[in-house]
Amino acid sequence: MITPFFDVKPLEAVLSLTDQFSPMESETIAVENAFSRVLSCDIAASADMPGFRRATMDGYAVAAASTFGASESSPAWLNITGIVPMGGVPDFKLAPGTAARISTGGMLPKGADSVVMIEHTDLVDEESVEIYKSVAPLQHVIDASEDFAKGEIVLSRGRFIRPQEQGLLAGMGIDRVDVFRRPRVGIISTGDEIIPISETAGPGRIRDINSYALAGFVEEAHAVPVCYGIVADDRSAVEQAIQRALAETDMVLVSGGSSVGAKDYTLDVLSQLTDARILVHGIAVSPGKPTILAGVQNKMVWGLPGQVVSAMVVFKVVVVPFLDRIKGLDGTVPAVTIYGQLTRNIASAQGRRDFVRVILEKTPGGYRVKPVLGKSGLIKTMIYADGLLEIGEDVEGLEKGSTVEVILL
Amino acid sequence: MITPFFDVKPLEAVLSLTDQFSPMESETIAVENAFSRVLSCDIAASADMPGFRRATMDGYAVAAASTFGASESSPAWLNITGIVPMGGVPDFKLAPGTAARISTGGMLPKGADSVVMIEHTDLVDEESVEIYKSVAPLQHVIDASEDFAKGEIVLSRGRFIRPQEQGLLAGMGIDRVDVFRRPRVGIISTGDEIIPISETAGPGRIRDINSYALAGFVEEAHAVPVCYGIVADDRSAVEQAIQRALAETDMVLVSGGSSVGAKDYTLDVLSQLTDARILVHGIAVSPGKPTILAGVQNKMVWGLPGQVVSAMVVFKVVVVPFLDRIKGLDGTVPAVTIYGQLTRNIASAQGRRDFVRVILEKTPGGYRVKPVLGKSGLIKTMIYADGLLEIGEDVEGLEKGSTVEVILL
Repeated sequence: MITPFFDVKPLEAVLSLTDQFSPMESETIAVENAFSRVLSCDIAASADMPGFRRATMDGYAVAAASTFGASESSPAWLNITGIVPMGGVPDFKLAPGTAARISTGGMLPKGADSVVMIEHTDLVDEESVEIYKSVAPLQHVIDASEDFAKGEIVLSRGRFIRPQEQGLLAGMGIDRVDVFRRPRVGIISTGDEIIPISETAGPGRIRDINSYALAGFVEEAHAVPVCYGIVADDRSAVEQAIQRALAETDMVLVSGGSSVGAKDYTLDVLSQLTDARILVHGIAVSPGKPTILAGVQNKMVWGLPGQVVSAMVVFKVVVVPFLDRIKGLDGTVPAVTIYGQLTRNIASAQGRRDFVRVILEKTPGGYRVKPVLGKSGLIKTMIYADGLLEIGEDVEGLEKGSTVEVILL
Repeated sequence: MITPFFDVKPLEAVLSLTDQFSPMESETIAVENAFSRVLSCDIAASADMPGFRRATMDGYAVAAASTFGASESSPAWLNITGIVPMGGVPDFKLAPGTAARISTGGMLPKGADSVVMIEHTDLVDEESVEIYKSVAPLQHVIDASEDFAKGEIVLSRGRFIRPQEQGLLAGMGIDRVDVFRRPRVGIISTGDEIIPISETAGPGRIRDINSYALAGFVEEAHAVPVCYGIVADDRSAVEQAIQRALAETDMVLVSGGSSVGAKDYTLDVLSQLTDARILVHGIAVSPGKPTILAGVQNKMVWGLPGQVVSAMVVFKVVVVPFLDRIKGLDGTVPAVTIYGQLTRNIASAQGRRDFVRVILEKTPGGYRVKPVLGKSGLIKTMIYADGLLEIGEDVEGLEKGSTVEVILL
């Protein structure tokens, strides 16, 4: 049986389908585990931050006015009226013309509005200090609500939690935080020629590279890979594996079996799953054209090309945006790409989006973008490559020296 | 007691100290856990890869010569002499003028050197096919040793394992792989003003942001954070905590206590540890000047600034290269940075390396780099920022429109 030819969709049309899927449900986790998760609710400051007027330098808390005009040649001379205890509230008030010793992080006493760095002072005796540099009000100080004011939304739903966001959540006393559950991604390799990695490869047999590469890409995308191993080119075996993965995970990747060929069961199996909609059968990208996407309720089942490089490229450029969608990312932060100068001309076919493997060479002032030579099916091209250069559907080719955009690998 | 002023070193001089530390010891792990690890040995191909002449497209295996001159208007007409079984060795040989049905990944029969894509063929009957496009020898085929030849070093010691390297290792039948052990990084917060995140902040008291932010940065760097909580400004308590962390981890981060101030015990404690060498006491960077590095045998103890933003910046620009060193990275792949156009003038002090928090705005053709406004001590500047713009020691400032380099946050 020869399945029908692809109904090839442009990449943009495929990516516009992300909104057919909803983010994962929410769960509450400890803030120390929040790095790389995605907020599922807005976070408002429950109090001013830092909550008191705080020194950002070691030195002397002063009223700025007491230092006006001070210089190396004409220092201001202030009485030391106290020492601010770290972690405590100063039990004294600064009179004009006086100063209090303070360390970074200390609370300014009443009457003080700024801090003179210790490097700009000289201790005359236990009770007096010379100031060599004037300060402005609030200099070397963070005011009570200067970082965040009570009630302010500091982080929004859909925000990726970087280390600094994890620190901020902790700083606001949020020890448990609501995040989207991490998607579990089921991975199935199909093909009679695919053997477990512990077996001897060739002739005719090749080890299961896709399960391991795809698991790595899923992890890199901060999701959880669940491998279901290798399934023979057998309709009911493929169906069983997909059903099991659908029951146990949130997205399923089936590699192999999506080409137009005699032994391609994926499309058949997917078409006949309960509630399945075939959303994509062929994408105008190279490599990666024979890609299938089916929606089964809120879950996606992908038929990825069996060819290893194609499967990897499709994961990076097509699957990741869908994964981002169900991870709950708000989509306001675009993926980081690198711009650089192309080192040679590249030809490209019109009517499809080409992804060319490239090496990035850093030079002072920018990157040189060097296409990786070699057949597109070779794994080594992905090993040598630092990124993928995207060439638009309407472009016949790119000229040496032109500025190009590269997706990092 | 006022400790002596810093002996400030330029950043380059500090970074040149990385080679005073050796990579972690090696361990053997399962290849499915290898993503984000670093190879501790060279990997040579144990056999040719793929090991046999393999189709990269669905179609017909042919001798290229049988298709020469074929076109839409004048197709070549070939007898079908067999079907290649997936995962098997074809038990027949192609005679000139014949073709064999083959699927992607199949092994070419003897006598065939290329594959005609099914899209360029038309089945006349069960026994014959028309070919509309000629192919060249080895077209749509990967030859037996075309990816890697037996004995070839495919990946070198010190290589970061991305998803594609994980896939390649699996493909070569390497189910267990030698990698450098992941460094464990101990994290200690010091300061009488620092309280656990579950307690009420202010006045004078602030929650422990650094432990959580630094733990996130350690995780982001593919190392393992181990938090030791908050230690009061007490010499023996700080010493005990450092000793414990040194015994249990591979690198120690102590935040707070490195400023020149009355309650700064870190330098004292470090100076008096057995076998400790104070390698750095002050770095000519802003923020982050009051940074200490001590070497205790092969372990580093860092005294990071207590100020939250400074601690984060120092981690990214100073600690990460040292962490990369002990992770075993070979240093040949430079950190990815983004180049873009500055949106406004920035002033900078000479004699130190400045790191300015910036927002990256993507435009067609490149990034606009927009400095984050606000005092350098505010955490929100790190929350708004996408990256750090580096300004060299010899530079007085940067002009609007100039191309600048940005480290991603």
